[in-house]
Amino acid sequence: MPSTQSKAVSLPDVKQETYTYTKPFGLECGDTLPELHIHYTTHGKLSENKDNVVWVCHALTANANPVEWWPGLIGDNCPINPDDHFIICANILGSCYGTTGPADIVNGEKTALDFPSITVRDMVRAHILLREHLGISHIHLGIGGSMGGQQLLEWAFMEPDTFKNLCLIATNARHSAWGIAFNSAQRMALEADPGFYTKAPDAGWKGLEAARAIAMLSYRNQNTYNTTQTDHEPVLDHFKADSYQRYQGEKLRKRFDAHAYYYLSKAMDSHHIGRDRMTAADALAKIKSKTLVIGIESDLLFPVAEQSFIARHIPEAKLEVIDSIYGHDGFLIEVEQISDLIRPLL
Amino acid sequence: MPSTQSKAVSLPDVKQETYTYTKPFGLECGDTLPELHIHYTTHGKLSENKDNVVWVCHALTANANPVEWWPGLIGDNCPINPDDHFIICANILGSCYGTTGPADIVNGEKTALDFPSITVRDMVRAHILLREHLGISHIHLGIGGSMGGQQLLEWAFMEPDTFKNLCLIATNARHSAWGIAFNSAQRMALEADPGFYTKAPDAGWKGLEAARAIAMLSYRNQNTYNTTQTDHEPVLDHFKADSYQRYQGEKLRKRFDAHAYYYLSKAMDSHHIGRDRMTAADALAKIKSKTLVIGIESDLLFPVAEQSFIARHIPEAKLEVIDSIYGHDGFLIEVEQISDLIRPLL
Repeated sequence: MPSTQSKAVSLPDVKQETYTYTKPFGLECGDTLPELHIHYTTHGKLSENKDNVVWVCHALTANANPVEWWPGLIGDNCPINPDDHFIICANILGSCYGTTGPADIVNGEKTALDFPSITVRDMVRAHILLREHLGISHIHLGIGGSMGGQQLLEWAFMEPDTFKNLCLIATNARHSAWGIAFNSAQRMALEADPGFYTKAPDAGWKGLEAARAIAMLSYRNQNTYNTTQTDHEPVLDHFKADSYQRYQGEKLRKRFDAHAYYYLSKAMDSHHIGRDRMTAADALAKIKSKTLVIGIESDLLFPVAEQSFIARHIPEAKLEVIDSIYGHDGFLIEVEQISDLIRPLL
Repeated sequence: MPSTQSKAVSLPDVKQETYTYTKPFGLECGDTLPELHIHYTTHGKLSENKDNVVWVCHALTANANPVEWWPGLIGDNCPINPDDHFIICANILGSCYGTTGPADIVNGEKTALDFPSITVRDMVRAHILLREHLGISHIHLGIGGSMGGQQLLEWAFMEPDTFKNLCLIATNARHSAWGIAFNSAQRMALEADPGFYTKAPDAGWKGLEAARAIAMLSYRNQNTYNTTQTDHEPVLDHFKADSYQRYQGEKLRKRFDAHAYYYLSKAMDSHHIGRDRMTAADALAKIKSKTLVIGIESDLLFPVAEQSFIARHIPEAKLEVIDSIYGHDGFLIEVEQISDLIRPLL
């Protein structure tokens, strides 16, 4: 198994494992990975009749431990908790937290841009391998926001009988031109840093910082920035909003990988539940799970119209719209509102 | 006079001049430029009683020829035309179209990051030098959008008796934290390209392309992108929106300069009509000109609330809001709507 970079966070009180699938894993692009490592965590115990599984799909830069990045929603004394539920979350294909991806060091060298293109469907096929490995055939609830929701939509289409319930937050059935344009600007920033074209372990960190600063603009909105980042006294330089952007870039750079970021961003852009199948609306109509779709009124990146589209076309779906000053990031922050909405599903 | 890069566009049928102010020019940051070159164009003739001057202030990356970048509004048979008006536009301090800036080559070397910080007030003081040089004491109409409007607000505060009328489009009295955050992400992209730290004439072009792609997201909006850049057939790569972003980056890179972009972006961030004076509202209250403020409903970067603020505080001001699919860029595109609104001022 190739070693991954040492950026994986420590996950106390969590059962974390890596499942190695030793056969070749074909990708949607036509390339094949010789084997596949899937890093995942579980919290709690599988009930005897195996009806308490909650599968969490994480977003772009998160890891396999939802207790860490979704506090208040998942964990002890939370709506989704290890006393009642068997909580599973797998690091996605292409990421840098233990699952196979471009940050892997193989034969002493980082894979980097030699990694093949991946899609959300490839990620889901890896999830399905893990589900089979764990001997789970039914999932009580699949929950995820943003790219996590994109995975769940794909998964519920590919396996219509797996999920009893779905909770899809701030996500879409097809990634928009607007979302692609945001990702494209981020990739251009990554490419402006020549380190990106090398195989050095921390290559491309300046581009990664810039990419994250761009992404923040889509995760928040004008109201968030103006409310929290306006200089009290007007200044000629060293603006508070500028420091904030640099701080956010630095924070991600310390925990993530430029190449993983690049590949995941392209996977997101290709997301389209109907691609090479049928229209997105027709594909949504095949999903059988009872589905709660949650939109955030102030979400600039995944506007509510996209969740409304999902809810209109999944037969057993309901749309709820919540308010947040945090825009798209509200899916990670507004845990009280989300908790109130998902309790009936648990 | 230092030579500037050869990127200045050709300006047919326009009287273009460079005025050289040969005394030291003190800047708001405390530094001094040894001399100042101001590149400008004029269209038409000054009337005998000097009452037909229209001064156009240009935005971030434009040049001194408004006939080129504001077609339909300025030029022959337009509301602002050389038969009726004496139209003046000066390239702003810090730009790369003939006025002193970081793209200047002095003693065979590009000035680059050795250029001192500049502000919108410094730009306006350069405009005032040119106004005096041209023997003009009254301006019938000052018109500008975005950073052009920021200059006019500063100017009308510094010289309350100069402008009879103002038309301020898609601009603000103080640059917002949201705007600063967008500019900051662009500067981080510029800084990710190591060429930016060199003095090579075309240094930093990859960063500049990324910066422009980021800026486009703020100049347009989700509706613009989704309507015009959605792939007809869903694809795995080479998304239309991605090509569009790269095309926009390349287009700017061919005509602009990375260092000029950086300095102008910081000047914009420091814009605050009240800085070191009074509140922005009190500063606006000192403006005596009859003022038409135009906002664009879909403007993501300079939301209508900012134009509403200006119009509420300038005593003789009126707010008009126009609609556009182009967001902030509507100020350059919606010339018919703008023409209808400004005719009474001419």
